[in-house]
Amino acid sequence: MNIIKQSILNKVIKQRESNTHKGNYGRLLIIGGSPNYGGAVIMAAEGALNSGAGLICVATHSINVSALHARDPEIMFLDWHDEKGLKQMIPQMDVIVCGMGLGNDKYAKNILLTLKNYVTPNQSIVFDASALDLMAQDKSLILQQAKNIILTPHQMEWQRLSQIHIPYQSDSANLEALNNLFPNKNAYLILKSNHTKIYDSNGEFFENPIGNPGMAIGGMGDTLAGIVGGFIGQFGADIETLQAAVYLHSLAADEIYRNHYIVRPTKLSASLPFLMKKYGSKDEEN
Amino acid sequence: MNIIKQSILNKVIKQRESNTHKGNYGRLLIIGGSPNYGGAVIMAAEGALNSGAGLICVATHSINVSALHARDPEIMFLDWHDEKGLKQMIPQMDVIVCGMGLGNDKYAKNILLTLKNYVTPNQSIVFDASALDLMAQDKSLILQQAKNIILTPHQMEWQRLSQIHIPYQSDSANLEALNNLFPNKNAYLILKSNHTKIYDSNGEFFENPIGNPGMAIGGMGDTLAGIVGGFIGQFGADIETLQAAVYLHSLAADEIYRNHYIVRPTKLSASLPFLMKKYGSKDEEN
Amino acid sequence: MNIIKQSILNKVIKQRESNTHKGNYGRLLIIGGSPNYGGAVIMAAEGALNSGAGLICVATHSINVSALHARDPEIMFLDWHDEKGLKQMIPQMDVIVCGMGLGNDKYAKNILLTLKNYVTPNQSIVFDASALDLMAQDKSLILQQAKNIILTPHQMEWQRLSQIHIPYQSDSANLEALNNLFPNKNAYLILKSNHTKIYDSNGEFFENPIGNPGMAIGGMGDTLAGIVGGFIGQFGADIETLQAAVYLHSLAADEIYRNHYIVRPTKLSASLPFLMKKYGSKDEEN
Amino acid sequence: MNIIKQSILNKVIKQRESNTHKGNYGRLLIIGGSPNYGGAVIMAAEGALNSGAGLICVATHSINVSALHARDPEIMFLDWHDEKGLKQMIPQMDVIVCGMGLGNDKYAKNILLTLKNYVTPNQSIVFDASALDLMAQDKSLILQQAKNIILTPHQMEWQRLSQIHIPYQSDSANLEALNNLFPNKNAYLILKSNHTKIYDSNGEFFENPIGNPGMAIGGMGDTLAGIVGGFIGQFGADIETLQAAVYLHSLAADEIYRNHYIVRPTKLSASLPFLMKKYGSKDEEN
Repeated sequence: MNIIKQSILNKVIKQRESNTHKGNYGRLLIIGGSPNYGGAVIMAAEGALNSGAGLICVATHSINVSALHARDPEIMFLDWHDEKGLKQMIPQMDVIVCGMGLGNDKYAKNILLTLKNYVTPNQSIVFDASALDLMAQDKSLILQQAKNIILTPHQMEWQRLSQIHIPYQSDSANLEALNNLFPNKNAYLILKSNHTKIYDSNGEFFENPIGNPGMAIGGMGDTLAGIVGGFIGQFGADIETLQAAVYLHSLAADEIYRNHYIVRPTKLSASLPFLMKKYGSKDEEN
Repeated sequence: MNIIKQSILNKVIKQRESNTHKGNYGRLLIIGGSPNYGGAVIMAAEGALNSGAGLICVATHSINVSALHARDPEIMFLDWHDEKGLKQMIPQMDVIVCGMGLGNDKYAKNILLTLKNYVTPNQSIVFDASALDLMAQDKSLILQQAKNIILTPHQMEWQRLSQIHIPYQSDSANLEALNNLFPNKNAYLILKSNHTKIYDSNGEFFENPIGNPGMAIGGMGDTLAGIVGGFIGQFGADIETLQAAVYLHSLAADEIYRNHYIVRPTKLSASLPFLMKKYGSKDEEN
Repeated sequence: MNIIKQSILNKVIKQRESNTHKGNYGRLLIIGGSPNYGGAVIMAAEGALNSGAGLICVATHSINVSALHARDPEIMFLDWHDEKGLKQMIPQMDVIVCGMGLGNDKYAKNILLTLKNYVTPNQSIVFDASALDLMAQDKSLILQQAKNIILTPHQMEWQRLSQIHIPYQSDSANLEALNNLFPNKNAYLILKSNHTKIYDSNGEFFENPIGNPGMAIGGMGDTLAGIVGGFIGQFGADIETLQAAVYLHSLAADEIYRNHYIVRPTKLSASLPFLMKKYGSKDEEN
Repeated sequence: MNIIKQSILNKVIKQRESNTHKGNYGRLLIIGGSPNYGGAVIMAAEGALNSGAGLICVATHSINVSALHARDPEIMFLDWHDEKGLKQMIPQMDVIVCGMGLGNDKYAKNILLTLKNYVTPNQSIVFDASALDLMAQDKSLILQQAKNIILTPHQMEWQRLSQIHIPYQSDSANLEALNNLFPNKNAYLILKSNHTKIYDSNGEFFENPIGNPGMAIGGMGDTLAGIVGGFIGQFGADIETLQAAVYLHSLAADEIYRNHYIVRPTKLSASLPFLMKKYGSKDEEN
């Protein structure tokens, strides 16, 4: 088993070049947040925003826009019932993150279908939470054509999608299931637990050595999905980027946990710009 | 009279075990917040969130969702007019906290009836504010079947519910009234005053020695109810847990009062993760 | 001319007695905030809240409730179109603050009429901004029966109400006009300028020696009106209380101005609990 | 090429005179924020507010008012569908900033027409983002009569408006295009890039030497437009004021970037009052 090393941060988080603009750091579409779970998509968006995404649009139920903008005016809003807008926007984005608080009603399913029809082979897509459950219920919702597909289930969500019961979620079983789901080998699995593992469909896998039980709080996974999206938009979708995202998420939590009994996801996100500067590359030439 | 000791914090607030997830720290449903009193349920939710509850859903009037998520995206929302949703959710939760800003109209009463019909013997329930007044007006709203029932009235609310006038609220009278209301002896009474007392229906009682008059501000009690819910979800519903919750609430207020003329409840809540780390158990094996 | 001395803070801001509850620190109703000016009533409420008011209800247009509670869950809300609720609440409050962003339409006028009909001789009332202009337009809106009436105009508002042009606003002219408006001698005038003056209808007056031009920003006066309301609810409506409120408002601004080019009213309010502790009475017996 | 010097801050940012009021520091109307882009106009407003504007009204879609006031109660709101209100307000303001998140539908166009009809020769107007694109599409929307017209495009927006492709955006070509668009020579061009340039239609131009790639994030330009508006309202519309605004914006970003991987525009704005005090004039007589 390969353990993620802290040096991955220095390798992945590059010093930005001066002649760049926001388009260089990823255009993200984050889809989620039914009326009951608006906070989930807000936390994902804050993960992406604070990890450096250039441009973020959140497609969500309109009930969530006031809270979103009260916290983060930097983020654009799309009413997820605006199907035309959604269909226009999807192909323009670099990264799509979908599923936090999406719910499991007919309309949520319809959004997955829209993604299936409109995602292009140049795009990376992160599926989290409800999106994974919907796919587990109806395999026809699974899309294949994206450049990269990243799944971020916790163990129970992975059980439902992979049909592998938690005690049997061995590395080989997980890889096999991933490749059955995505035969194009364009997929990554971030299997969240207190020892989160990352699997590349090409066979590599890594384990996260850090983190703490103060992270056992609603929204922690949504925040990770957002960071993953933010990192892919900036550093590309590969196994090193995913390692860095997972490691940074836990490192930020560990820093807070040192002096706090629990780690609020919103507090974790707010600490990312400082930590990325601290642990990222200082390479002058870069 | 037993005085609560600071050491109760170290005893109750356990260091979290590493192999745990949010489900281990309590699923809470917090019900309250009519259009006029939305802030009350938000403050209760912040008490629960910052004291470490694993998962929190607030059932409230939909007018309150924007403010709730603008402050605390970690918290889920349920429109309290969604009766079907409420009936589905109630039995799934570990702890229910009900009453802050609930109001006293017909629909508030209806919510208490729903609780009476759907709460299970495995659940703990905290009744605060309007819920206590509604029960005082109509004793048929009182439920008995919960595993633990915690009442958090101030002296006037207790007068209305127990029919004991404030000057006559002696320990023996309070215990007798509590046992008349809850003959199953599954109840606790947290009687708020500037010397808050906690009564176990089995006869024990404790007095809180700390706190300050800067706490004399709207929302202080709502926040305590939330902390009580958060603690029960993590540490179990017993007399020690309640002592720790009450003591921590006052300790946090005293820390703020040292440099501030008043103690805003929202500021108190925000300080809890730091204080729980500072005063909680550091036991390495735990 | 009497200059307000810093020692007024120590005299007025009493250390709270331990056996007290929120009812001892004033029940405030703050009325204002048409759809265009919701921020004004929020800033007044934050002035009152942070200066220690025990209980605050804001009566405003319902469009403002989300922002109010996103900032200050401690504050209750009343839809100002709920006439029945307003008529029930008015007589129950200790202090009423009215006018910030009230606007000048027919409904704003109607609110002043409701106050005129429902305010009792035990109550203190602070009139600010639009309320003063409406009275200037229609003298029949002026009420006389409150225990204390405090006006907080800036010089132009006072010109409109008193008919004294700014260059002629001498102390004697101001006192005469105040007594013509309120022949019962139950009124105070806080005439805001860069040398704010406070007039007691019984003849005393005081000048504020501090403050700074960083305070020249929208909302500064709304905040003062809120502090005045908060202080009256705690310390009683007399000339010393008003001196302390005005002085503290400027002192807080001066502290911020030392390191900041401008003084945001919301930042000023947030600093009040700290300053009231620092400059208030430390008398142990109190 | 003239490089902007840090000393411009000391020259432009004057110490405020004590006998002043909010009317002395500019009345600003900021127009923008369609339902999808409400954050853009909020960020512009925060730039203006924190840089010291005396009075700010935001005309935007009503969906944005809760978030606006949750963040900034100091700012007034106008529903941009209230045409009568808009027509009344426009001539009363000193500075108008228009375009952030305005969108490009028929109603956005209508707002530009209203400006064209109601702006007076005493007013300064800043055009940003969508406003520039709408003018590029329909030159008849361009107004000439304002005292000063400031354009704040990035290079692509300038390409669309000037018809000069980015590689050909030389100083002489830019000046010529500016003078063709505004033959009255009452215009300034702030051409945003990683070396932002400022052109005075009378021929002078300056380059900003500072800034960093952490600024490559949505909302950075909106914030600059707000600062430009705030500065013009306080310090007058001339080339020095614009230099100071552009320089301060980048200086604030550089301060944050020193310890943070990215610069959130809202964080930048929040730092302005401190930096303006630090780098502005300390002239005692002023």
